[in-house]
Amino acid sequence: MSRKILVLPGDGIGPEITREAVKILNACREAGLDVDVEEGLVGGAGIDAHGVPLPDETLARAKAADAVLLGAVGGPQWDKIEDLAKRPEKGLLGLRKNLNLFGNLRPALLYPQLASASSLKPEIVAGLDIMIVRELTGGIYFGQPRGIEERDGEKVGFNTYIYAEHEIERIGRVAFEMARARGGKLCSVDKANVLEATILWREVMERLAPEYPDVELSHMYVDNAAMQLVRAPKQFDVIVTGNMFGDILSDAAAMLTGSIGMLPSASLNEQRQGMYEPCHGSAPDIAGQGVANPLATILSVAMMLRYSLEAPQLAERIERAVGSVLDQGLRTADIAFEGTAPVSTQAMGDAVLAAF
Amino acid sequence: MSRKILVLPGDGIGPEITREAVKILNACREAGLDVDVEEGLVGGAGIDAHGVPLPDETLARAKAADAVLLGAVGGPQWDKIEDLAKRPEKGLLGLRKNLNLFGNLRPALLYPQLASASSLKPEIVAGLDIMIVRELTGGIYFGQPRGIEERDGEKVGFNTYIYAEHEIERIGRVAFEMARARGGKLCSVDKANVLEATILWREVMERLAPEYPDVELSHMYVDNAAMQLVRAPKQFDVIVTGNMFGDILSDAAAMLTGSIGMLPSASLNEQRQGMYEPCHGSAPDIAGQGVANPLATILSVAMMLRYSLEAPQLAERIERAVGSVLDQGLRTADIAFEGTAPVSTQAMGDAVLAAF
Ligand SMILES: CC(C)[C@H](C(=O)O)[C@@H](O)C(=O)O
Ligand SMILES: CC(C)[C@H](C(=O)O)[C@@H](O)C(=O)O
Repeated sequence: MSRKILVLPGDGIGPEITREAVKILNACREAGLDVDVEEGLVGGAGIDAHGVPLPDETLARAKAADAVLLGAVGGPQWDKIEDLAKRPEKGLLGLRKNLNLFGNLRPALLYPQLASASSLKPEIVAGLDIMIVRELTGGIYFGQPRGIEERDGEKVGFNTYIYAEHEIERIGRVAFEMARARGGKLCSVDKANVLEATILWREVMERLAPEYPDVELSHMYVDNAAMQLVRAPKQFDVIVTGNMFGDILSDAAAMLTGSIGMLPSASLNEQRQGMYEPCHGSAPDIAGQGVANPLATILSVAMMLRYSLEAPQLAERIERAVGSVLDQGLRTADIAFEGTAPVSTQAMGDAVLAAF
Repeated sequence: MSRKILVLPGDGIGPEITREAVKILNACREAGLDVDVEEGLVGGAGIDAHGVPLPDETLARAKAADAVLLGAVGGPQWDKIEDLAKRPEKGLLGLRKNLNLFGNLRPALLYPQLASASSLKPEIVAGLDIMIVRELTGGIYFGQPRGIEERDGEKVGFNTYIYAEHEIERIGRVAFEMARARGGKLCSVDKANVLEATILWREVMERLAPEYPDVELSHMYVDNAAMQLVRAPKQFDVIVTGNMFGDILSDAAAMLTGSIGMLPSASLNEQRQGMYEPCHGSAPDIAGQGVANPLATILSVAMMLRYSLEAPQLAERIERAVGSVLDQGLRTADIAFEGTAPVSTQAMGDAVLAAF
């Protein structure tokens, strides 16, 4: 039976970059992958067409799919919407929550061909390869109570940072297993010297550790982790942390590579159903110009093949094809060196296709 | 009437570095500053002597002081204490809260003499001069309810991220005024696309803006701010943010300079009573060896003179003295170049004294 993939281009550069990724997906189909690919609306595109960032139809089709490929959501035209439930981001958050995609994998990998793009010194980042495992369906993003209300004659805004043991345990297992399959080192990031929610986090990580004797578990406070990422990022192998800290640290880690346009991500549930998207955003400033880098989205297809479609060989073929276009010197504007002419989104997609 | 200064050496390297800073304070006294200097216990030192991180006597003396000079708190021997109320950090948090020190100023300044210590490329950080204004007595650090309890047969840990309008407004004013006195640019960092508490934050910052027409206010999501600090930190002048985000971003910003042993901080209340401390921690691994860098603590004395003791000339003399020992090539181990012999904590303090 063929597997179902739902493509959600979203907003900004989303449509352009997913278009190139779908070409690769089609090439995989020609290479024997049995998939059905359909498209849907999410984010600002959902708001414009149906008044909501996550139309019922989109959610139903996402639930029925084996994997979702998402471009990006958001843009200035929806920034004035005050009701969080009606903003483009809610499309993304709603998919994560409704599909129970608690396990977010965000690699920060430095491509040797792009080493000079980093704002850090070459010796600090050469060979950088970190995997950030971020909890994605809990924590302060979804905690109740939340809101803005009147108290003692003034407004107060509040959110709740909350984790239950089972939520910590399941993301912990994802992270321990990831560390086991990689360099065997897991750093759990918390703020256990201040926040009770993260005291429990640390406790559960400690409790899991004996089940993974081959993994070396350490703990780090989030402020120190932010420093260490800048100071000596290669000390990390796998980092596991909650939703909010993961949002911040994974972006910082991605930026260490200097080429966030290269970085894919995966968000998985217990059944390995997954949503795959580039780490970067919708980049409204360059949308529609055909200059965006499609490689993060193409590499997200590779992650999809590996984690949701059990096709690791095809995943490797895509990754090798990306490596080879970089070797050929092809660069979109975001990763271009001074003096070299950047290629278009489409030309980059075509080059990967040719190298596939 | 002479002003009162309470020195709280605390733990780890705290006693060594405050000792050098007190020498400078005494030199200021000889130069005409009318101050009384006394010492007290806080953090692990408070726990060891009185069983609590913030002894009543320390709190009473801190309240009666015009300014507090703090070394650092914490260490592995107290890390196993599970009750947050009994941990060394509680000494620090209790002082901040009880003295109402809501305005935390954390400069990230690159000393030209130390430019090569940064892990970032010289062109990215040369001339870096950011001031982070962090709210210090509210947000998730102090929000209620908080705790760990049993629900539906498992433990849950929870904290509350909460801000009231008046709390946002007063830190906003500190930040706008700081921006006015510096480069005229203020970036407010929030997560207003996800968290209601920070929607209110953004609203209040917007409301204040018309009162400061000479300051250019912008907003940035915290994940993007973490990226931009790595990518192009010189785009920032003053950053204002809440307690948690400020903890993370100020450490990342400090590390951009490569010499966190150089960075002081101030925490002020509405009466300009203040607590002054280095940005770095208690560094238990090098405690008692006489190798720690006392300059951040010495520069904290300069901030104290400027913000709490109305003695800006003396503050400048200290800052110039620090610049001159750096020019002389003196370096403690943390900022030493390969091939140069580091000086001791005491030798560094004496050198600043000689240059004062
Ligand atoms: C768009 C936003 C809601 C989202 C998040 O905060 O999770 C994004 O920053 C991300 O990291 O995927
Ligand atoms: C020690 C700790 C409680 C403290 C904080 O989180 O505020 C420290 O990291 C700081 O930034 O001063």
